[in-house]
Amino acid sequence: MSYYIQPLKNLITEFAKMPGIGRKSAQRLAYYVLSLDDNQALALARAIEKLKEEVHLCPKCFNITDLEVCEICTSPKREQSTVCVVENPKDIIAIEKTREYRGLYHVLHGVISPMDGVGPEDIKVKELLVRLGEVNAEEVILAMNPNIEGEATAMYLSRLIKPLGIKVTRLARGIPMGGELEFADEYTLVSALKGRVEI
Amino acid sequence: MSYYIQPLKNLITEFAKMPGIGRKSAQRLAYYVLSLDDNQALALARAIEKLKEEVHLCPKCFNITDLEVCEICTSPKREQSTVCVVENPKDIIAIEKTREYRGLYHVLHGVISPMDGVGPEDIKVKELLVRLGEVNAEEVILAMNPNIEGEATAMYLSRLIKPLGIKVTRLARGIPMGGELEFADEYTLVSALKGRVEI
Repeated sequence: MSYYIQPLKNLITEFAKMPGIGRKSAQRLAYYVLSLDDNQALALARAIEKLKEEVHLCPKCFNITDLEVCEICTSPKREQSTVCVVENPKDIIAIEKTREYRGLYHVLHGVISPMDGVGPEDIKVKELLVRLGEVNAEEVILAMNPNIEGEATAMYLSRLIKPLGIKVTRLARGIPMGGELEFADEYTLVSALKGRVEI
Repeated sequence: MSYYIQPLKNLITEFAKMPGIGRKSAQRLAYYVLSLDDNQALALARAIEKLKEEVHLCPKCFNITDLEVCEICTSPKREQSTVCVVENPKDIIAIEKTREYRGLYHVLHGVISPMDGVGPEDIKVKELLVRLGEVNAEEVILAMNPNIEGEATAMYLSRLIKPLGIKVTRLARGIPMGGELEFADEYTLVSALKGRVEI
Protein backbone atom coordinates (compact mmCIF):
# COMPACT_ATOMS: atom_id res chain seq x y z
CA MET A 1 0.00 0.00 0.00
CA SER A 2 2.92 2.37 0.62
CA TYR A 3 3.33 2.82 -3.13
CA TYR A 4 0.12 4.82 -3.25
CA ILE A 5 -0.01 8.49 -2.36
CA GLN A 6 -2.01 9.21 0.79
CA PRO A 7 -5.29 10.56 -0.68
CA LEU A 8 -5.51 7.56 -3.01
CA LYS A 9 -4.64 5.18 -0.18
CA ASN A 10 -7.41 6.70 1.96
CA LEU A 11 -10.06 6.26 -0.70
CA ILE A 12 -8.93 2.70 -1.47
CA THR A 13 -9.26 1.92 2.25
CA GLU A 14 -12.78 3.38 2.35
CA PHE A 15 -13.90 1.53 -0.78
CA ALA A 16 -12.39 -1.73 0.46
CA LYS A 17 -14.72 -1.58 3.50
CA MET A 18 -17.74 -1.88 1.22
CA PRO A 19 -19.42 -5.30 0.90
CA GLY A 20 -18.17 -7.39 -2.02
CA ILE A 21 -15.36 -4.93 -2.80
CA GLY A 22 -11.89 -6.46 -2.52
CA ARG A 23 -8.62 -4.56 -2.56
CA LYS A 24 -8.20 -4.83 -6.35
CA SER A 25 -11.74 -3.56 -6.95
CA ALA A 26 -11.19 -0.75 -4.43
CA GLN A 27 -8.08 0.32 -6.35
CA ARG A 28 -9.98 0.26 -9.63
CA LEU A 29 -12.79 2.36 -8.14
CA ALA A 30 -10.35 4.87 -6.61
CA TYR A 31 -8.64 5.32 -9.98
CA TYR A 32 -12.07 5.76 -11.53
CA VAL A 33 -12.79 8.62 -9.09
CA LEU A 34 -9.39 10.10 -9.95
CA SER A 35 -10.34 10.01 -13.63
CA LEU A 36 -13.59 11.91 -13.04
CA ASP A 37 -13.76 15.65 -13.52
CA ASP A 38 -14.30 17.67 -10.33
CA ASN A 39 -18.06 18.03 -10.78
CA GLN A 40 -18.61 14.32 -11.32
CA ALA A 41 -16.55 13.42 -8.25
CA LEU A 42 -18.40 16.01 -6.18
CA ALA A 43 -21.74 14.57 -7.36
CA LEU A 44 -20.70 11.19 -5.94
CA ALA A 45 -19.50 12.68 -2.65
CA ARG A 46 -22.68 14.77 -2.32
CA ALA A 47 -24.92 11.79 -3.06
CA ILE A 48 -23.30 9.99 -0.13
CA GLU A 49 -23.65 12.99 2.20
CA LYS A 50 -27.26 13.69 1.14
CA LEU A 51 -28.26 10.08 1.72
CA LYS A 52 -27.17 10.36 5.34
CA GLU A 53 -28.56 13.88 5.79
CA GLU A 54 -31.97 13.38 4.23
CA VAL A 55 -32.89 9.78 4.95
CA HIS A 56 -34.40 8.76 8.27
CA LEU A 57 -37.03 6.31 9.47
CA CYS A 58 -40.74 7.00 8.98
CA PRO A 59 -42.18 7.53 12.49
CA LYS A 60 -45.21 5.41 11.58
CA CYS A 61 -43.94 2.35 9.70
CA PHE A 62 -40.15 2.67 10.23
CA ASN A 63 -39.41 2.38 6.53
CA ILE A 64 -36.61 4.66 5.31
CA THR A 65 -37.86 7.96 3.89
CA ASP A 66 -36.74 11.47 3.00
CA LEU A 67 -40.18 12.85 3.92
CA GLU A 68 -41.54 13.56 7.38
CA VAL A 69 -43.88 10.57 7.10
CA CYS A 70 -43.23 8.12 4.25
CA GLU A 71 -45.14 8.11 0.97
CA ILE A 72 -46.88 4.81 1.65
CA CYS A 73 -48.15 5.83 5.10
CA THR A 74 -49.54 9.14 3.77
CA SER A 75 -51.03 7.73 0.54
CA PRO A 76 -54.87 7.77 0.53
CA LYS A 77 -54.75 4.96 -2.05
CA ARG A 78 -53.31 2.39 0.33
CA GLU A 79 -55.70 0.06 2.19
CA GLN A 80 -55.48 1.00 5.85
CA SER A 81 -56.87 -2.35 6.97
CA THR A 82 -53.85 -4.48 6.07
CA VAL A 83 -50.36 -4.21 7.51
CA CYS A 84 -47.49 -6.21 6.05
CA VAL A 85 -44.68 -6.74 8.57
CA VAL A 86 -41.17 -7.07 7.11
CA GLU A 87 -37.68 -7.41 8.51
CA ASN A 88 -35.99 -4.64 6.51
CA PRO A 89 -36.75 -1.67 4.25
CA LYS A 90 -35.29 -3.60 1.28
CA ASP A 91 -38.11 -6.14 1.65
CA ILE A 92 -40.64 -3.35 0.99
CA ILE A 93 -38.93 -2.61 -2.34
CA ALA A 94 -39.20 -6.30 -3.28
CA ILE A 95 -42.93 -6.43 -2.43
CA GLU A 96 -43.74 -3.07 -4.05
CA LYS A 97 -42.18 -4.27 -7.30
CA THR A 98 -44.85 -6.96 -7.57
CA ARG A 99 -47.59 -4.22 -7.72
CA GLU A 100 -49.76 -6.82 -6.01
CA TYR A 101 -49.96 -5.39 -2.52
CA ARG A 102 -51.88 -2.21 -1.70
CA GLY A 103 -51.83 -2.17 2.10
CA LEU A 104 -49.50 -0.63 4.66
CA TYR A 105 -46.14 -1.83 5.96
CA HIS A 106 -44.32 -2.10 9.24
CA VAL A 107 -40.55 -2.61 9.37
CA LEU A 108 -39.22 -4.55 12.35
CA HIS A 109 -35.55 -3.75 11.63
CA GLY A 110 -34.45 -7.25 12.46
CA VAL A 111 -35.82 -10.52 13.77
CA ILE A 112 -35.86 -12.11 17.16
CA SER A 113 -32.66 -14.12 17.47
CA PRO A 114 -31.69 -15.33 20.96
CA MET A 115 -28.40 -16.65 19.50
CA ASP A 116 -27.44 -13.08 18.58
CA GLY A 117 -28.93 -11.63 21.74
CA VAL A 118 -31.80 -9.95 19.85
CA GLY A 119 -35.06 -9.98 21.77
CA PRO A 120 -38.50 -8.52 20.94
CA GLU A 121 -37.52 -5.30 22.73
CA ASP A 122 -34.62 -4.79 20.28
CA ILE A 123 -36.85 -4.67 17.19
CA LYS A 124 -39.99 -2.60 16.44
CA VAL A 125 -42.52 -4.95 18.07
CA LYS A 126 -44.00 -2.51 20.59
CA GLU A 127 -44.35 0.05 17.81
CA LEU A 128 -46.19 -2.52 15.68
CA LEU A 129 -48.80 -3.07 18.41
CA VAL A 130 -49.30 0.70 18.80
CA ARG A 131 -49.68 1.02 15.03
CA LEU A 132 -52.21 -1.82 14.77
CA GLY A 133 -54.43 0.00 17.23
CA GLU A 134 -54.15 3.28 15.33
CA VAL A 135 -55.02 1.95 11.88
CA ASN A 136 -57.72 -0.51 13.01
CA ALA A 137 -55.99 -3.31 11.15
CA GLU A 138 -58.09 -6.26 10.02
CA GLU A 139 -55.21 -8.32 8.71
CA VAL A 140 -51.51 -8.53 9.47
CA ILE A 141 -49.31 -10.27 6.88
CA LEU A 142 -46.11 -11.57 8.46
CA ALA A 143 -43.53 -11.39 5.66
CA MET A 144 -40.41 -12.45 7.50
CA ASN A 145 -37.71 -14.38 5.63
CA PRO A 146 -38.54 -18.12 5.75
CA ASN A 147 -35.65 -19.17 7.97
CA ILE A 148 -35.43 -20.15 11.63
CA GLU A 149 -35.32 -16.62 13.07
CA GLY A 150 -37.99 -15.38 10.66
CA GLU A 151 -40.32 -18.25 11.55
CA ALA A 152 -39.74 -17.78 15.27
CA THR A 153 -40.45 -14.07 15.00
CA ALA A 154 -43.63 -14.76 13.01
CA MET A 155 -44.78 -17.24 15.67
CA TYR A 156 -44.05 -14.76 18.42
CA LEU A 157 -45.92 -11.93 16.65
CA SER A 158 -48.81 -14.21 15.75
CA ARG A 159 -49.34 -15.06 19.43
CA LEU A 160 -49.32 -11.37 20.33
CA ILE A 161 -51.63 -10.19 17.53
CA LYS A 162 -54.27 -12.93 17.24
CA PRO A 163 -55.74 -12.19 20.70
CA LEU A 164 -56.45 -8.64 19.42
CA GLY A 165 -59.00 -10.15 17.00
CA ILE A 166 -56.84 -9.40 13.99
CA LYS A 167 -56.41 -11.98 11.22
CA VAL A 168 -52.75 -13.03 10.99
CA THR A 169 -51.35 -14.50 7.76
CA ARG A 170 -47.92 -15.37 6.45
CA LEU A 171 -46.57 -15.45 2.89
CA ALA A 172 -47.15 -18.74 1.07
CA ARG A 173 -44.25 -21.15 0.75
CA GLY A 174 -43.44 -19.83 -2.67
CA ILE A 175 -40.14 -18.59 -1.35
CA PRO A 176 -37.62 -21.41 -0.90
CA MET A 177 -36.59 -22.15 2.69
CA GLY A 178 -33.30 -20.47 3.57
CA GLY A 179 -33.78 -17.94 0.75
CA GLU A 180 -33.76 -14.18 1.15
CA LEU A 181 -36.93 -12.25 0.45
CA GLU A 182 -35.13 -9.31 -1.13
CA PHE A 183 -33.67 -11.51 -3.87
CA ALA A 184 -36.88 -13.38 -4.73
CA ASP A 185 -38.15 -12.81 -8.28
CA GLU A 186 -41.43 -10.97 -8.70
CA TYR A 187 -43.49 -14.00 -9.79
CA THR A 188 -42.44 -16.00 -6.76
CA LEU A 189 -43.37 -13.08 -4.57
CA VAL A 190 -46.77 -12.67 -6.29
CA SER A 191 -47.66 -16.32 -5.68
CA ALA A 192 -46.37 -16.05 -2.15
CA LEU A 193 -48.65 -13.05 -1.60
CA LYS A 194 -51.67 -14.69 -3.25
CA GLY A 195 -51.24 -18.02 -1.50
CA ARG A 196 -50.78 -16.52 1.96
CA VAL A 197 -52.34 -18.70 4.66
CA GLU A 198 -53.79 -17.91 8.05
CA ILE A 199 -51.67 -18.97 11.02
CA MET B 1 -36.24 2.47 -9.79
CA SER B 2 -39.33 4.40 -8.72
CA TYR B 3 -39.63 2.20 -5.63
CA TYR B 4 -36.54 3.84 -4.17
CA ILE B 5 -36.65 7.17 -2.40
CA GLN B 6 -34.82 9.94 -4.24
CA PRO B 7 -31.59 10.19 -2.17
CA LEU B 8 -31.12 6.41 -2.42
CA LYS B 9 -31.92 6.47 -6.14
CA ASN B 10 -29.31 9.20 -6.68
CA LEU B 11 -26.56 7.28 -4.92
CA ILE B 12 -27.46 4.04 -6.73
CA THR B 13 -27.16 5.97 -10.03
CA GLU B 14 -23.74 7.35 -9.05
CA PHE B 15 -22.44 3.96 -7.92
CA ALA B 16 -23.76 2.25 -11.07
CA LYS B 17 -21.53 4.56 -13.16
CA MET B 18 -18.44 2.99 -11.59
CA PRO B 19 -16.55 0.35 -13.58
CA GLY B 20 -17.59 -3.21 -12.83
CA ILE B 21 -20.52 -2.10 -10.67
CA GLY B 22 -23.89 -3.27 -11.99
CA ARG B 23 -27.28 -2.10 -10.76
CA LYS B 24 -27.57 -4.84 -8.12
CA SER B 25 -24.11 -4.06 -6.75
CA ALA B 26 -24.90 -0.33 -6.78
CA GLN B 27 -28.03 -1.02 -4.70
CA ARG B 28 -26.04 -3.13 -2.27
CA LEU B 29 -23.40 -0.40 -1.91
CA ALA B 30 -26.03 2.33 -1.44
CA TYR B 31 -27.67 0.32 1.34
CA TYR B 32 -24.24 -0.18 2.85
CA VAL B 33 -23.77 3.61 2.95
CA LEU B 34 -27.23 3.92 4.51
CA SER B 35 -26.19 1.47 7.22
CA LEU B 36 -23.08 3.48 8.13
CA ASP B 37 -23.13 5.94 10.97
CA ASP B 38 -22.81 9.61 9.96
CA ASN B 39 -19.06 9.81 10.62
CA GLN B 40 -18.28 6.73 8.57
CA ALA B 41 -20.34 7.98 5.63
CA LEU B 42 -18.70 11.41 5.86
CA ALA B 43 -15.26 9.75 5.85
CA LEU B 44 -16.12 8.12 2.53
CA ALA B 45 -17.49 11.35 1.02
CA ARG B 46 -14.46 13.31 2.25
CA ALA B 47 -12.01 10.74 0.87
CA ILE B 48 -13.59 11.26 -2.55
CA GLU B 49 -13.48 15.05 -2.28
CA LYS B 50 -9.91 15.09 -0.93
CA LEU B 51 -8.70 12.86 -3.73
CA LYS B 52 -9.87 15.43 -6.27
CA GLU B 53 -8.72 18.41 -4.21
CA GLU B 54 -5.25 17.21 -3.31
CA VAL B 55 -4.12 15.08 -6.20
CA HIS B 56 -2.61 16.64 -9.32
CA LEU B 57 0.16 15.77 -11.77
CA CYS B 58 3.80 16.20 -10.81
CA PRO B 59 5.14 19.01 -13.04
CA LYS B 60 8.35 17.02 -13.67
CA CYS B 61 7.32 13.43 -14.36
CA PHE B 62 3.49 13.77 -14.65
CA ASN B 63 2.85 11.04 -12.11
CA ILE B 64 -0.07 11.75 -9.77
CA THR B 65 0.97 13.34 -6.49
CA ASP B 66 -0.36 15.28 -3.52
CA LEU B 67 2.97 17.13 -3.15
CA GLU B 68 4.21 20.06 -5.23
CA VAL B 69 6.75 17.79 -6.93
CA CYS B 70 6.31 14.03 -6.47
CA GLU B 71 8.27 11.97 -3.95
CA ILE B 72 10.22 10.08 -6.61
CA CYS B 73 11.36 13.22 -8.45
CA THR B 74 12.53 14.88 -5.20
CA SER B 75 14.20 11.79 -3.69
CA PRO B 76 18.00 12.07 -3.52
CA LYS B 77 18.13 8.25 -3.46
CA ARG B 78 16.84 7.83 -7.01
CA GLU B 79 19.33 7.50 -9.86
CA GLN B 80 19.00 10.60 -11.99
CA SER B 81 20.60 8.92 -14.99
CA THR B 82 17.75 6.54 -15.83
CA VAL B 83 14.21 7.49 -16.84
CA CYS B 84 11.51 4.85 -17.17
CA VAL B 85 8.70 5.95 -19.50
CA VAL B 86 5.25 4.51 -18.75
CA GLU B 87 1.77 4.96 -20.14
CA ASN B 88 -0.07 5.59 -16.86
CA PRO B 89 0.52 6.35 -13.16
CA LYS B 90 -0.75 2.83 -12.30
CA ASP B 91 2.23 1.38 -14.16
CA ILE B 92 4.58 3.17 -11.74
CA ILE B 93 2.88 1.41 -8.82
CA ALA B 94 3.43 -1.95 -10.55
CA ILE B 95 7.13 -1.25 -11.15
CA GLU B 96 7.74 0.23 -7.67
CA LYS B 97 6.32 -2.92 -6.11
CA THR B 98 9.19 -4.92 -7.59
CA ARG B 99 11.72 -2.81 -5.57
CA GLU B 100 14.04 -3.47 -8.50
CA TYR B 101 14.10 -0.07 -10.15
CA ARG B 102 15.77 2.97 -8.58
CA GLY B 103 15.63 5.51 -11.39
CA LEU B 104 13.15 8.20 -12.36
CA TYR B 105 9.86 7.96 -14.25
CA HIS B 106 8.00 9.83 -16.93
CA VAL B 107 4.28 9.29 -17.49
CA LEU B 108 3.03 9.73 -21.06
CA HIS B 109 -0.68 9.61 -20.10
CA GLY B 110 -1.55 7.49 -23.07
CA VAL B 111 0.02 6.01 -26.18
CA ILE B 112 0.12 7.08 -29.80
CA SER B 113 -2.94 5.58 -31.46
CA PRO B 114 -3.91 6.89 -34.91
CA MET B 115 -7.09 4.75 -34.78
CA ASP B 116 -8.25 6.72 -31.75
CA GLY B 117 -6.92 10.01 -33.09
CA VAL B 118 -4.15 10.20 -30.47
CA GLY B 119 -0.93 11.67 -31.84
CA PRO B 120 2.43 12.43 -30.14
CA GLU B 121 1.19 15.95 -29.35
CA ASP B 122 -1.69 14.51 -27.28
CA ILE B 123 0.59 12.72 -24.83
CA LYS B 124 3.57 13.96 -22.78
CA VAL B 125 6.25 13.45 -25.47
CA LYS B 126 7.51 17.03 -25.70
CA GLU B 127 7.72 17.12 -21.89
CA LEU B 128 9.78 13.91 -21.96
CA LEU B 129 12.37 15.47 -24.26
CA VAL B 130 12.60 18.57 -22.04
CA ARG B 131 13.04 16.33 -19.00
CA LEU B 132 15.75 14.21 -20.60
CA GLY B 133 17.80 17.35 -21.15
CA GLU B 134 17.29 18.51 -17.56
CA VAL B 135 18.33 15.27 -15.84
CA ASN B 136 21.20 14.36 -18.21
CA ALA B 137 19.72 10.93 -18.76
CA GLU B 138 22.04 8.13 -19.81
CA GLU B 139 19.32 5.54 -20.32
CA VAL B 140 15.61 5.65 -21.13
CA ILE B 141 13.60 2.50 -20.43
CA LEU B 142 10.48 2.37 -22.58
CA ALA B 143 7.94 0.48 -20.46
CA MET B 144 4.86 0.72 -22.64
CA ASN B 145 2.35 -2.13 -22.61
CA PRO B 146 3.43 -4.81 -25.14
CA ASN B 147 0.57 -4.29 -27.59
CA ILE B 148 0.35 -2.62 -31.00
CA GLU B 149 -0.03 0.96 -29.73
CA GLY B 150 2.58 0.47 -27.01
CA GLU B 151 5.09 -0.94 -29.50
CA ALA B 152 4.43 1.84 -32.00
CA THR B 153 4.86 4.48 -29.30
CA ALA B 154 8.13 2.86 -28.16
CA MET B 155 9.40 2.84 -31.76
CA TYR B 156 8.44 6.48 -32.19
CA LEU B 157 10.15 7.53 -28.94
CA SER B 158 13.22 5.41 -29.70
CA ARG B 159 13.74 7.28 -32.99
CA LEU B 160 13.44 10.61 -31.19
CA ILE B 161 15.70 9.80 -28.24
CA LYS B 162 18.54 7.73 -29.75
CA PRO B 163 19.90 10.68 -31.78
CA LEU B 164 20.37 12.51 -28.47
CA GLY B 165 23.06 9.96 -27.57
CA ILE B 166 20.91 8.36 -24.89
CA LYS B 167 20.72 4.57 -24.56
CA VAL B 168 17.16 3.40 -25.20
CA THR B 169 15.93 0.07 -23.82
CA ARG B 170 12.60 -1.67 -23.53
CA LEU B 171 11.33 -4.20 -20.99
CA ALA B 172 12.18 -7.81 -21.80
CA ARG B 173 9.48 -10.01 -23.25
CA GLY B 174 8.64 -11.36 -19.83
CA ILE B 175 5.25 -9.76 -20.11
CA PRO B 176 2.94 -11.75 -22.38
CA MET B 177 1.88 -10.00 -25.60
CA GLY B 178 -1.54 -8.40 -25.25
CA GLY B 179 -1.18 -8.32 -21.47
CA GLU B 180 -1.46 -5.25 -19.28
CA LEU B 181 1.59 -4.04 -17.39
CA GLU B 182 -0.38 -3.02 -14.31
CA PHE B 183 -1.63 -6.58 -13.77
CA ALA B 184 1.70 -8.34 -14.27
CA ASP B 185 2.99 -10.20 -11.23
CA GLU B 186 6.15 -8.92 -9.54
CA TYR B 187 8.42 -11.78 -10.67
CA THR B 188 7.49 -11.30 -14.31
CA LEU B 189 8.15 -7.60 -13.95
CA VAL B 190 11.51 -8.22 -12.29
CA SER B 191 12.67 -10.48 -15.13
CA ALA B 192 11.30 -8.01 -17.63
CA LEU B 193 13.35 -5.26 -15.97
CA LYS B 194 16.49 -7.39 -15.72
CA GLY B 195 16.29 -8.70 -19.28
CA ARG B 196 15.65 -5.33 -20.88
CA VAL B 197 17.27 -5.03 -24.32
CA GLU B 198 18.59 -2.10 -26.24
CA ILE B 199 16.52 -1.05 -29.25
